Amino acid sequence: MQRYMLTESLADFKGTTTELSGEHFHHIKNVMRSKVGTKVYLTDPNRHSFVAEIISFTDQTVLLKWVSNEERNSELPVEVTIASGLTKGDKQELIIQKATELGANQIITFASNYSVVKWDSKKVAKKITRFQRIAQEAAEQSHRQQVPMVDHFNDLKTLLDSSKNYTHKLVAYEEESKVGEKSRFADTLTKVKSGESLLIVFGPEGGLSLNEITQLQAEGFVTCGLGPRILRAETAPLYVLAAISYQFELLN
Amino acid sequence: MQRYMLTESLADFKGTTTELSGEHFHHIKNVMRSKVGTKVYLTDPNRHSFVAEIISFTDQTVLLKWVSNEERNSELPVEVTIASGLTKGDKQELIIQKATELGANQIITFASNYSVVKWDSKKVAKKITRFQRIAQEAAEQSHRQQVPMVDHFNDLKTLLDSSKNYTHKLVAYEEESKVGEKSRFADTLTKVKSGESLLIVFGPEGGLSLNEITQLQAEGFVTCGLGPRILRAETAPLYVLAAISYQFELLN
Repeated sequence: MQRYMLTESLADFKGTTTELSGEHFHHIKNVMRSKVGTKVYLTDPNRHSFVAEIISFTDQTVLLKWVSNEERNSELPVEVTIASGLTKGDKQELIIQKATELGANQIITFASNYSVVKWDSKKVAKKITRFQRIAQEAAEQSHRQQVPMVDHFNDLKTLLDSSKNYTHKLVAYEEESKVGEKSRFADTLTKVKSGESLLIVFGPEGGLSLNEITQLQAEGFVTCGLGPRILRAETAPLYVLAAISYQFELLN
Repeated sequence: MQRYMLTESLADFKGTTTELSGEHFHHIKNVMRSKVGTKVYLTDPNRHSFVAEIISFTDQTVLLKWVSNEERNSELPVEVTIASGLTKGDKQELIIQKATELGANQIITFASNYSVVKWDSKKVAKKITRFQRIAQEAAEQSHRQQVPMVDHFNDLKTLLDSSKNYTHKLVAYEEESKVGEKSRFADTLTKVKSGESLLIVFGPEGGLSLNEITQLQAEGFVTCGLGPRILRAETAPLYVLAAISYQFELLN
């Protein structure tokens, strides 16, 4: 059953109808070729989630009626933000898609010392729009109740400033893996309580510079290794999110 | 420091020299443009692993001398085999690359009921060669001591027959995730002892058929969910391997 993440509130949908136009209408009518009677999930930005049934079409809109509230919760019990040093195009898109599937609450890219890709402000707006769309599609496909916020910071300083809003702060650091550091990530996870927030920073292909690591540590970030194998820039965030899901959704 | 996974034994390398030709020679000389004095890691098929130093070149070969044995172990303490119903080309290659980075011991693809891709025997040989090469490059990049074996089975029956060789057998089943099953994967991991083998089966894009699930269960496979979000065919194996690494390499 298809899911649609709406930008409008559905707080009062129970027992009523709602009309969709624009891209959701297009997807229902022309991509899925759904007919009257087809049921879909509708989820609003405040995690209200429903089963709805198509009752009629016009040229530009589709009308759906409320069928039931959706009870299932598919969101991670902790709010995880992935901040990754800007990687090459397709790698960055893979991170956005997979981090969304794996439950990230927010995904930040930032211009890092060793990032080979550089964005001017015009490109940032275009890229963020594209990334947000990838996140929306991945959220719908994986049946989440929330689309992760995607953002871009032009420098590490902006990331350091915004890090004050998080309960726990980690940075995945390849040099820690090389010297066998393997307890800090798991130690941190055992301290995180339901509803708390966790920000984890990752380097681009070339890793983080020592200067960046020093600045992150000064801001309270804990450096950690992710096991004995060296993970690529796009693999490390997925490892972390899968481990967090395993710890909080399967093991506990 | 670059790593090269060799196909010849290096059991007696200590205190001696070794000569490389062919693709390793080409990579050292023409891709990396390494000079005399450059150090590299050499790893043989029996997990013997060394630091070696380039001492001379000829037109076709490079001579290296032993520097030290490598003590680091980067292999998972349990032998994990990923068997995935054949997915579309780029997804399948992503599974091979990422499963190698994440420590898989063996990667099997098999023709599944809902696989849209079909391979004739000529294509199988070509594809396996390509997959094995992807695995080798990913093993070198992630600094493993072993290249995972890649194999393809033409039907589920071959997979069922070979499953007798594994201590633990799981199948990731989307329908279990949908009904909230979330304990069997973690339960199984707590039973797996160091050195034991674990085979985990995954469906292609369309999932596994009920008939396939029934046959797997009859052979002793345990169906399990992987949390509340629906993971794509290429994401589920990566989730499982990351969780296994977290459980056995970071948490324990």
